Amino acid sequence: MLSKAQIKYIQSLQHKKYRQKSSQFMAEGDKIVPELLQEGVPVKEVYATSAWIAAHRALLDRTKDVNVTEVDENVLRQLSALTTPNQAIALLDIPGSAAIAPGSLKGTVSLALETIQDPGNLGTIIRIADWFGIRQIICTPDCVDAYNPKTIQATMGSIARVKILESDISTLIKEAGVPSYAATLHGRDITEFSKLEEGIILIGNESRGLSEAVISASTHKITIPRLGGAESLNAGVAAGIICGRLLI
Amino acid sequence: MLSKAQIKYIQSLQHKKYRQKSSQFMAEGDKIVPELLQEGVPVKEVYATSAWIAAHRALLDRTKDVNVTEVDENVLRQLSALTTPNQAIALLDIPGSAAIAPGSLKGTVSLALETIQDPGNLGTIIRIADWFGIRQIICTPDCVDAYNPKTIQATMGSIARVKILESDISTLIKEAGVPSYAATLHGRDITEFSKLEEGIILIGNESRGLSEAVISASTHKITIPRLGGAESLNAGVAAGIICGRLLI
Repeated sequence: MLSKAQIKYIQSLQHKKYRQKSSQFMAEGDKIVPELLQEGVPVKEVYATSAWIAAHRALLDRTKDVNVTEVDENVLRQLSALTTPNQAIALLDIPGSAAIAPGSLKGTVSLALETIQDPGNLGTIIRIADWFGIRQIICTPDCVDAYNPKTIQATMGSIARVKILESDISTLIKEAGVPSYAATLHGRDITEFSKLEEGIILIGNESRGLSEAVISASTHKITIPRLGGAESLNAGVAAGIICGRLLI
Repeated sequence: MLSKAQIKYIQSLQHKKYRQKSSQFMAEGDKIVPELLQEGVPVKEVYATSAWIAAHRALLDRTKDVNVTEVDENVLRQLSALTTPNQAIALLDIPGSAAIAPGSLKGTVSLALETIQDPGNLGTIIRIADWFGIRQIICTPDCVDAYNPKTIQATMGSIARVKILESDISTLIKEAGVPSYAATLHGRDITEFSKLEEGIILIGNESRGLSEAVISASTHKITIPRLGGAESLNAGVAAGIICGRLLI
């Protein structure tokens, strides 16, 4: 049984202000919650139906320090941030955001996002990063919060494997000591690049793209060649296409 | 001024049943409506605020046979399928869906979609097709309707340049006389292929992927190599990455 205060607390995590205050976020989904448990991410609480708990008993037993609470579908509907609630919701601590040490991005490929506003886009990009083995994404402070329930949902569990860091990007790319690749509409054709061993791929806001400050601070300007009539591509799709050309 | 019956008619176009009955669909958006007008797509009606009409006067004057009706923002809110209504809504006739003549897909690249369910995904894929110069998308009859307002919104105007056809896919690829490329998790690495001159790229359902019938009827099975932990990619992102490898 959940008290009214507990229900209110979980609902409050749909809002950034309360996530920041409590340093917790929620993840919901029949596939995401088991994936987080399997990855060994410190899940604090699981609220799920009795059927879901029975089906995941072994996994829950293997998980240290998790509280499991049985709730019915009515309560899940109250807790859910989605229109179609799932069988299970988890609460997790937001990982502490360490400062990015100079030199720490050497030898790896990172993604950096400037002012991404759509939670679904951010989640999709986290999933893309995870697919291509990118271990960290740097977000400008004005990006949508990565622990937004819609973002977590769109990551499909990849939030467990990709570190989210926050930083100003134009300063970062000047100091990182690795090449940086700014996605623009007027750069060099991505097909002319060979596979990257290290560097930062820069993706900008959904409607405005990257700022001039970031573009001019970057070491390379890159463009997906356009063969047809569309004016632009969705930010998540563009990130996927660029990774699909530069990382494999 | 719009009558109650007119408002009801426009609202009805949010539902597939009524779109099919009337063979009309709606497109809304400050950028999409001008793009449709500019492309010369036969726009029948435009409902917009007086400010929007004034700003697009020249374009509207150049457009033959369009009725322009000034409405206020309250009415637009009633007509809109979106939570944030736009300044302009257009009504258009749904293009007649001609049968695909055998041989008509030769010499071009097409996309074929099996059971895509999410309207946003379908719109994103139409936009990707338009970016890469793909002129037609074949959808199985159980795909989400391409004239759904959310799909139209996500195409960002690309619906004006990409033809949507409906067909069973496994029969089509057997008879089309061009190679077909099925996106699966266990195919040949996409980086091993050279640029396509003709063929059909096959993308499957968001959670189940392509059916066995389509995979076995295809001439090539292709896979985006996975370097990290994510189990899968979003269908739209996968379509983008594949086009980004096979078409440029």
